[in-house]
Amino acid sequence: MRVLLTGSAGFVGSHLATRLLGEGHHVVGVDNYLSGQPRNTAQLLEWPGFRFVEADVSRALPDPGGPLDWVLHFASPASPPHYQEHPIETLMVGAQGTQNALDLALAHGAQFLLASTSEVYGDPLVHPQPETYWGHVNPNGVRSCYDEAKRYAEAITMAYHRHHGLRTRIIRIFNTYGPRMRADDGRVVTNFVHQALRGEPLTVYGAGDQTRSFQYVDDLVEGVRRLMGVPYSGPVNLGNPDEYTVLDFARLIRDAVAPGLEIVHLPPAQDDPQQRRPDIALARSLLGWAPRVPLREGLERMIAEVRAEVGLPATAFSPAALGQARP
Amino acid sequence: MRVLLTGSAGFVGSHLATRLLGEGHHVVGVDNYLSGQPRNTAQLLEWPGFRFVEADVSRALPDPGGPLDWVLHFASPASPPHYQEHPIETLMVGAQGTQNALDLALAHGAQFLLASTSEVYGDPLVHPQPETYWGHVNPNGVRSCYDEAKRYAEAITMAYHRHHGLRTRIIRIFNTYGPRMRADDGRVVTNFVHQALRGEPLTVYGAGDQTRSFQYVDDLVEGVRRLMGVPYSGPVNLGNPDEYTVLDFARLIRDAVAPGLEIVHLPPAQDDPQQRRPDIALARSLLGWAPRVPLREGLERMIAEVRAEVGLPATAFSPAALGQARP
Repeated sequence: MRVLLTGSAGFVGSHLATRLLGEGHHVVGVDNYLSGQPRNTAQLLEWPGFRFVEADVSRALPDPGGPLDWVLHFASPASPPHYQEHPIETLMVGAQGTQNALDLALAHGAQFLLASTSEVYGDPLVHPQPETYWGHVNPNGVRSCYDEAKRYAEAITMAYHRHHGLRTRIIRIFNTYGPRMRADDGRVVTNFVHQALRGEPLTVYGAGDQTRSFQYVDDLVEGVRRLMGVPYSGPVNLGNPDEYTVLDFARLIRDAVAPGLEIVHLPPAQDDPQQRRPDIALARSLLGWAPRVPLREGLERMIAEVRAEVGLPATAFSPAALGQARP
Repeated sequence: MRVLLTGSAGFVGSHLATRLLGEGHHVVGVDNYLSGQPRNTAQLLEWPGFRFVEADVSRALPDPGGPLDWVLHFASPASPPHYQEHPIETLMVGAQGTQNALDLALAHGAQFLLASTSEVYGDPLVHPQPETYWGHVNPNGVRSCYDEAKRYAEAITMAYHRHHGLRTRIIRIFNTYGPRMRADDGRVVTNFVHQALRGEPLTVYGAGDQTRSFQYVDDLVEGVRRLMGVPYSGPVNLGNPDEYTVLDFARLIRDAVAPGLEIVHLPPAQDDPQQRRPDIALARSLLGWAPRVPLREGLERMIAEVRAEVGLPATAFSPAALGQARP
C-alpha cells in the first residue's frame, strides 16, 4: 500500500515509517524539521520505497505523486520545551495541519489516522484513564497550546468521520521512549539517559512522585499497525500501564548507566500532571494488543543506541547482546 | 475609536455593534451569513459609522481600510442545531478564524477580544463555574465541534498574548437572550417564545430539570464594554447567575404569552449539560459589573420585539410600554 506520513522525521513517525517500509509498503514522508531530525530522514531514504518532501503541513500538504491508501498524521512538537517554544506552530499543526491531512485523505479516498496523545486527559482525576474519560485540561495554561490542539484535532477528525464519512482512526499515545528521541526533547527518559551518559546528576522536577507509564516505541508501532486493520473510529489508548514514579525511573536509568550518580530535585513544572496511566482494555479487546517490551529491556536498547549516537563505547548493553532473548 | 467586529450580523455581534455605534465609534462589520442575519446588517447600515464586508473570517479577513483600535471576534455558529449542521465551519472559525483575527490585531497594533463561551465548561462538575474551573468536555462528541473550537480559540488567544505580547481579552458568554435571535436557533428561549407566539405546545428536552442562567443581551454588552477598559487577559465569565430550570423557563414564557398552552417533553439531547451557572465574582470585582435586567423584564422586551418581527399585534408588552421603568 501507499501511505503519506506527516512527521516522518520525528521520533515516533520515523519508527512507524521504518516498520511500514520493512513490510514492503511505500511511504511519502513529510516534515518541516521544526522538531524532527534530518538524520531520521537520512536513515529512511536508504529504503527505495521512501520519498521525502520537506514541507509545513500546517500550510499545505504536497502532492503525493500517486494514489494513497492512508494518511497518517504524526506531525507535531510533542515535548513541553518544544511546544512551549513554538506554541503557535503547535496549535496550527493540530488545527490547520490536521485539516490539511484530512482533506488529503478525503481527496484520495484514503483512510486517516490521527496521532493524539494522553495529554488530552490533562491532569486526570480518574486512574487509570479509559478512552471514555473526558479529561481535566486547563484550556489556557502554558500547556494548552499542545493539549487543546490535540483535543481540537480529535474533534475535527470525528467531524470529518461523521460529516464526510471518512474512515478515521485516533490513537492516544502515552509516554513512549526509544532510540531516535531528540537529546534536547526535555522529557524525563531522554533527560535521564543523556545526563547519566554525561556523568551528570539526574534532575527530577518536584518530589518525583508524579507517575508515568513508559511504552517502548516498537510496542506503540505494533498497536498502530493493528488498529489500521480494524475499522474503529473512536480514540484508542496505546501505552504501557506499568506505572513508575519519575523518581523510580531516574533510579533505574542511573543504575543501568552509572550507579554512583546523584539525583537532584528542581521546582515542579507548571501544570505538570501528577499521574497518568492508560487503561488499555479497549486495545486488548479490539486489537489483541498489549505492550511486550519490559522497561528494563527497552531502556537497555535505548541506552545502547544513544551511546552509539553520542560516540560512547558500547557496554554490556551492546546492540549485539540486545538481539538475544532476555529473562 | 475604530473597531473590526467579526460576526456583526449575529445576535450578540449586532447588539454590540449597535452599542459601539451609539457611542460614536466606527465599526467595520464582517460576516458570511452562515448563521448571521442580513436584516441585522440592514439595521446597522443606518449608522454612518458602520461599514460591512461580507467575508468568511476563516478564509481571510478584509482590509479594514484604515487603522484599528480593536478586533472583536464574535463570529461563530453558537446554537447546537447550527453548529452541528456546520461542524467543520464551526471548528474552522474557532481555529483559522480566531488566528486570522489575532493576526489582524497584531498587524494593526490593535487590542483583541475573543467571545468564548460557557460551553468550555462542558457538562460541569463544579457549580457555579468560576473561571479557574477547567471544565468537563467530551473532546470528540457531537458538541465537540463547538466546545473544542472555543477551547482552542482561548488557547491560541493566550498563545498570542504570551508569545507576541498582544493585548487580549477573553469573555465566556453564558446563555444570552434578547431581540434579534434567529427564530430557528434551537435554543430554549427562542424555541419557547416562538412556540408560544404560534400557539403551539412548548417542547422541553428531557425532564426539563437541567438548569440555565439567562442573561439579557444588554447586560452582556455592558460587560464587554467594561472589560475593554481593563487590561486583564484571563477569561472572564459574563452571565446571569440567577438559575432557572428549563421547565421553569417554559412556564414563565408560556404564562407571559398564552397561559393555556401545553408543555411537552422530548428525549434528552446528547451531551446536553445538566446544569450551568456562572460564578461572576471576577466580573464584579474587576469590572464592577453585574446583570441588571430582571428575567421577566428581558423576556417582555424580547417577546414584544419578536411579535413585531413576526407581524403579530403588540400586547400589554408593547415596545412603547417597555421604555418605562418597571418595578
